[in-house]
Amino acid sequence: MDAAATITQFGRMLDNLDRWLEAAVAYAGTKKFDPDVFAQSRLAPDQYELVRQVQSGCDQAKYAAAYLSGQKAPSHPDTEKTIGDLRSRIRTCVSYLRSIESSAYAGAADRRVAPPWLNGKWMRADAYLDQVAIPNFYFHMTTAYAILRHNGVPLGKMDFVGSLPINDA
Amino acid sequence: MDAAATITQFGRMLDNLDRWLEAAVAYAGTKKFDPDVFAQSRLAPDQYELVRQVQSGCDQAKYAAAYLSGQKAPSHPDTEKTIGDLRSRIRTCVSYLRSIESSAYAGAADRRVAPPWLNGKWMRADAYLDQVAIPNFYFHMTTAYAILRHNGVPLGKMDFVGSLPINDA
Repeated sequence: MDAAATITQFGRMLDNLDRWLEAAVAYAGTKKFDPDVFAQSRLAPDQYELVRQVQSGCDQAKYAAAYLSGQKAPSHPDTEKTIGDLRSRIRTCVSYLRSIESSAYAGAADRRVAPPWLNGKWMRADAYLDQVAIPNFYFHMTTAYAILRHNGVPLGKMDFVGSLPINDA
Repeated sequence: MDAAATITQFGRMLDNLDRWLEAAVAYAGTKKFDPDVFAQSRLAPDQYELVRQVQSGCDQAKYAAAYLSGQKAPSHPDTEKTIGDLRSRIRTCVSYLRSIESSAYAGAADRRVAPPWLNGKWMRADAYLDQVAIPNFYFHMTTAYAILRHNGVPLGKMDFVGSLPINDA
């Protein structure tokens, strides 16, 4: 487990998500519809809409960062209504992730993680990161991306992945 | 980076994917339609269909395991047509992942990863795992799940995540 590297990667993906939302607004502009229609779009009637996918993705990153660095997570109330609101939420989350020094994760492997939904039970930090935080974070990133793609926003796989640190031969 | 733990988690998620496909077949049975309709279902006309989401997810796991353990990846041809074929492909992939001893990943952090699509360029193994393998793997898992959910298969978030190693207080 490398908690600091994983949180850094979550920050990169949230930057990518912000760019997908920017592309959604641009697409709505060319098609002359209200971009905030996307905010309530969903893939199935009993799946969350885009607003909650973005909120949940941010929260997975925020709580992973807080639990693994031994901090109390800041409160980010779920009040967003518009794409602009969501982009602000993403920036707030990314600022928090980047405010934590790498050294704060030094003891992460020995921490117990006991989020409220475990009702007093706990998980080892490495299991929490690999089996809860990472799968759920990417679940919400991919579902947000899929809602936009399903509704015609011109995005491709490289937009999902973002820029990569590639070295010349 | 803990390559062995990540590959173990990929195996768990592929087991989960197999259970979603099993649920899709059962759902088709109750609704009296051919479950292989799901094989060609997709979320957007220019996104891959379920067959290729499953193949790609398997390949992300297979290549990550091979590159990070210093092996040549086995060939798994993309010949699947039916849900049954896809479930076999998943089992073949998981068997490969579980055939690699954890000790084979010991030197992973020092490896350079140079997949064919990098045309001779390379990435550090940790960057490849965090920024290519994990995001792409979960992209395909989540998109496969979303195709099924969008088409009415009764699945929920706990089916996505699977069983967790939770400890009593």
